[in-house]
Amino acid sequence: MPSDTDRCAQPQRRSIGARRNPETEAAILTAAQELVEEKGLRGLTMEAVAKRARAGKATLYKWWPSRGALLVALYHASKGEHRHTDLGSLPETIAGFYSYVFGFWQTPAGRLFPLIIAEAQSNEDVADALQDYRQERLADLTALVSRAQARGELVADTDSEALADLIMANAWMHLMTGRIAVTDPAKLAHDVLRGWCLPDGSSA
Amino acid sequence: MPSDTDRCAQPQRRSIGARRNPETEAAILTAAQELVEEKGLRGLTMEAVAKRARAGKATLYKWWPSRGALLVALYHASKGEHRHTDLGSLPETIAGFYSYVFGFWQTPAGRLFPLIIAEAQSNEDVADALQDYRQERLADLTALVSRAQARGELVADTDSEALADLIMANAWMHLMTGRIAVTDPAKLAHDVLRGWCLPDGSSA
Repeated sequence: MPSDTDRCAQPQRRSIGARRNPETEAAILTAAQELVEEKGLRGLTMEAVAKRARAGKATLYKWWPSRGALLVALYHASKGEHRHTDLGSLPETIAGFYSYVFGFWQTPAGRLFPLIIAEAQSNEDVADALQDYRQERLADLTALVSRAQARGELVADTDSEALADLIMANAWMHLMTGRIAVTDPAKLAHDVLRGWCLPDGSSA
Repeated sequence: MPSDTDRCAQPQRRSIGARRNPETEAAILTAAQELVEEKGLRGLTMEAVAKRARAGKATLYKWWPSRGALLVALYHASKGEHRHTDLGSLPETIAGFYSYVFGFWQTPAGRLFPLIIAEAQSNEDVADALQDYRQERLADLTALVSRAQARGELVADTDSEALADLIMANAWMHLMTGRIAVTDPAKLAHDVLRGWCLPDGSSA
């Protein structure tokens, strides 16, 4: 029996151990999404989610060790396992990246992201979960930069992770300062990469 | 007579018209600072500030049209009219800029800034006030970049405002992701400027 103390009239969903039950996971994420839509970010508590999803709090905590982890998982689930496409040239690839994230951040699910960043400023659990998520996305972006570097597109001794971090910082800055709807992704990619990309025909 | 409805037993400070009375302004900012320290950001309401400073709400609203404007003014007042120093080379100047802001953001007054950015994500008044503040700081930073450009330090056709925006984005990103205490300002300046600065001795 789950050790949680929050019992409601309806039968609880049963955990099937360490492996996640996809049906329960989906029910939990749906409940979390509904709570955020209805009550805002602060309406998302582990207790309220467990109750609405008819799941045990122990199950919730086993899969997501904190409210912050659940919040970031919710954002991640709605965004999907998107991998940014290598378009063969770094300015085009990064323009595509900015175009994709700016578009997603304007959807109802995407509007969660600046609120997660905001929450991370005063909640350590959220900050930790956001940190993990950022590292994962940074690795994806760094791989794209490294491939452009291997093609000879970038100036010598470019630190691909530092450049990926800068590309991401530029995206977050535009999000946090309300500029994603009015910024041209191609111009932004040009601005961040202006100094790094070698002219066509030259090599690193 | 001020038209506010919030009257308390003690005599109110009198406004002396459109010009700010420095004593009243200081009393208001002190009251605002104390409220934030005691009750957190949400404890800062125009009503609570007026009451504690024994000032009329009309006076507050005349000088700061919104709670957001007051919040940013409070941060600005504690930071002072700091202008970043041109150290004669852009990488050194920007290393100095990162070093200064990362240091300030770790002081009690500086810790207000990420909370203001967070608050701006769900409060339009705060977002507007932050936008004005950012534009002002961006102009200061752009001037430093332009001077380096005039000295021939940067690659041809550098958009000095876009580069200043990127330099600032990098600082904010490190702040919002909890990295300001562990980041080397000189390395960060190098990373953001790597592609832009011409080697010594060449010219744009």
